[in-house]
Amino acid sequence: MTMTDTNRQWRLKRFVQPDEILGEEHYELSESPMPTIDDEQILVKTLLLGTSPAQRMYVTEERTFHIAVEIGEVMSGRGVGVVMESKHPDFEAGEIIQATLGWQDYVALTPDDKSDTGKNVRTVQKVPNPVRPLTTIMGLFGQLAFSAYVGIIEVGQVKEGDVVLVSSAAGGVGSVACQLARIQGASKVVGIAGGQEKCDWLVEQGLCDSAIDYKKPGQDLAAAIGEHCPDGADVYLDNVGGAMLDAALQNIAVGARVVICGMISTEYMNPRPDGPKHYFNLLYKRSRMEGFFVFDYVPRWPEFEEQLREWYSQGKLKLVDDVFDGLPSAPRALGSLFTGGHTGGCVIRVADDPENIPAI
Amino acid sequence: MTMTDTNRQWRLKRFVQPDEILGEEHYELSESPMPTIDDEQILVKTLLLGTSPAQRMYVTEERTFHIAVEIGEVMSGRGVGVVMESKHPDFEAGEIIQATLGWQDYVALTPDDKSDTGKNVRTVQKVPNPVRPLTTIMGLFGQLAFSAYVGIIEVGQVKEGDVVLVSSAAGGVGSVACQLARIQGASKVVGIAGGQEKCDWLVEQGLCDSAIDYKKPGQDLAAAIGEHCPDGADVYLDNVGGAMLDAALQNIAVGARVVICGMISTEYMNPRPDGPKHYFNLLYKRSRMEGFFVFDYVPRWPEFEEQLREWYSQGKLKLVDDVFDGLPSAPRALGSLFTGGHTGGCVIRVADDPENIPAI
Repeated sequence: MTMTDTNRQWRLKRFVQPDEILGEEHYELSESPMPTIDDEQILVKTLLLGTSPAQRMYVTEERTFHIAVEIGEVMSGRGVGVVMESKHPDFEAGEIIQATLGWQDYVALTPDDKSDTGKNVRTVQKVPNPVRPLTTIMGLFGQLAFSAYVGIIEVGQVKEGDVVLVSSAAGGVGSVACQLARIQGASKVVGIAGGQEKCDWLVEQGLCDSAIDYKKPGQDLAAAIGEHCPDGADVYLDNVGGAMLDAALQNIAVGARVVICGMISTEYMNPRPDGPKHYFNLLYKRSRMEGFFVFDYVPRWPEFEEQLREWYSQGKLKLVDDVFDGLPSAPRALGSLFTGGHTGGCVIRVADDPENIPAI
Repeated sequence: MTMTDTNRQWRLKRFVQPDEILGEEHYELSESPMPTIDDEQILVKTLLLGTSPAQRMYVTEERTFHIAVEIGEVMSGRGVGVVMESKHPDFEAGEIIQATLGWQDYVALTPDDKSDTGKNVRTVQKVPNPVRPLTTIMGLFGQLAFSAYVGIIEVGQVKEGDVVLVSSAAGGVGSVACQLARIQGASKVVGIAGGQEKCDWLVEQGLCDSAIDYKKPGQDLAAAIGEHCPDGADVYLDNVGGAMLDAALQNIAVGARVVICGMISTEYMNPRPDGPKHYFNLLYKRSRMEGFFVFDYVPRWPEFEEQLREWYSQGKLKLVDDVFDGLPSAPRALGSLFTGGHTGGCVIRVADDPENIPAI
């Protein structure tokens, strides 16, 4: 392991406006001296950074989200790092950890300090016996996969024989959700993605039985879903909201669970668009629509991880991700979540795995 | 008991149009000879008829509801009757029963024939040891109260300390729902009703702790709900849909249950109005919105009835209804559900209780 003297950091330059796509123009890449650590602290080198649509809410002017990044502050984000130096009794150099590292090469963390957020997201979690490549931590054993787990298993309650419809199926949450649906015994997994290429990829990869290109010109999305799910969907995992949610609501089976994991299509619209017109099917089909925050399940993350590792080791789950290389690519990687420019979980590789095992 | 020779019947004259209020003009009051009965049949005299917003869907042209009345047919509706004559081994004259009697003085029923609907709603149910007045059967021990039971207890899962918001609180379902919420330990029951008079009535009757007049000129309903439920509502029982649902969604607590029991405000609009814009709070507040049909719970109706009778005998539940007198008032009674012209369950008294105990 080598250490440089400087710490590159992506700092927030200006808030993202309601009608804007998130991009490099909102950040500034600056250099600071290497952080030093006090007692009870650890110095961590960032290896990987994850991306999540929720990060857009960190940098809006409204400040309604529970995590907020101020102008001039380092962009917040969870990642995987290696401990370089430890003045905390429970940590030692060389250990792999997960934490909210921020978009920077190095960070001084205080593992016992949980004061800064009510959501505990700064918790430093050790990753004992990490599976290689380390990108599995982001793609299969981290927040994205836990979101898929909660959405499909806890809230969606997918059971044997269910028809499961997943939006953003090629995304970080969706690609795991499709696999979990199959593990739970779904009779059919139908994905929705943007572009025929992604749809073909979903079926080739074995993530979905069939896939719908929502960008196909002239297509009536509700009718297309109806063709793929002639008896309706028992579970719909919604990452999109808006018109896609409305199209799905036209095709739910009796007793369906519509799980709201995100609403990326409308999250940055102001004023908010109209609600889903076909919500009345919740009555006609005696169905439920329910939202969740994966951070509410933090105490259960270890349980989820154990189960996901077991399925991975059994070959039932595979890693599907899109790796952006280098810290400078961070804003572009996050922005790609909103423009659809990736397949699988979107990960930023900031530095090589210290064990020198190729990260992919 | 006396029997007349003729059987008055309200028959459907024309379908109700999407933009119409339901009224007498859709029906024709005709006279037929008294029905006669065959083996396995019973002759029933109608004493009371209930009303339900769902009955509007029986007489729309779309025919999407599972119960449909054709032009010239007797209007369908559940009620309470007395057996006049029986050729069925399990029934005898004088017994009180509940069944889908239709809007008529007399009907020949075949208790074992369940072929005509998938929903079993024609089931003839005996009412052993009926509580007097018999209107309790409609108001507290029938479909309306069972809807309130499912909404508050089964789907809403109201628990100790919950703040419960009920729309159409002065209606047949709402007035029972408010009482059930209190029995379940709600810390506050807030009703929504049309007009200050109804609101005062709700509080005076002890059904609600406070009430909101949604018709108050110049009022921002969402803000008004926020004043009555400053920490948000844990459960919202929605009988209305549309703008009222949207106002409630702006005021839900974390983990809220939004129970869709009906959507009377939008049910007859074509095209459908926009969906609830603030549905995104289901994500932000990790809440659920769920619809139900009370007929899905038919096997559990006896259990519900037993519990409701117990609470009634303990004085925890009281009968609140609005009785329309005489079969000719039936269309007007049903129409009043959509114009707000009643408080409590709306019942049509077709004939006096044969035991001559006053029905109120």
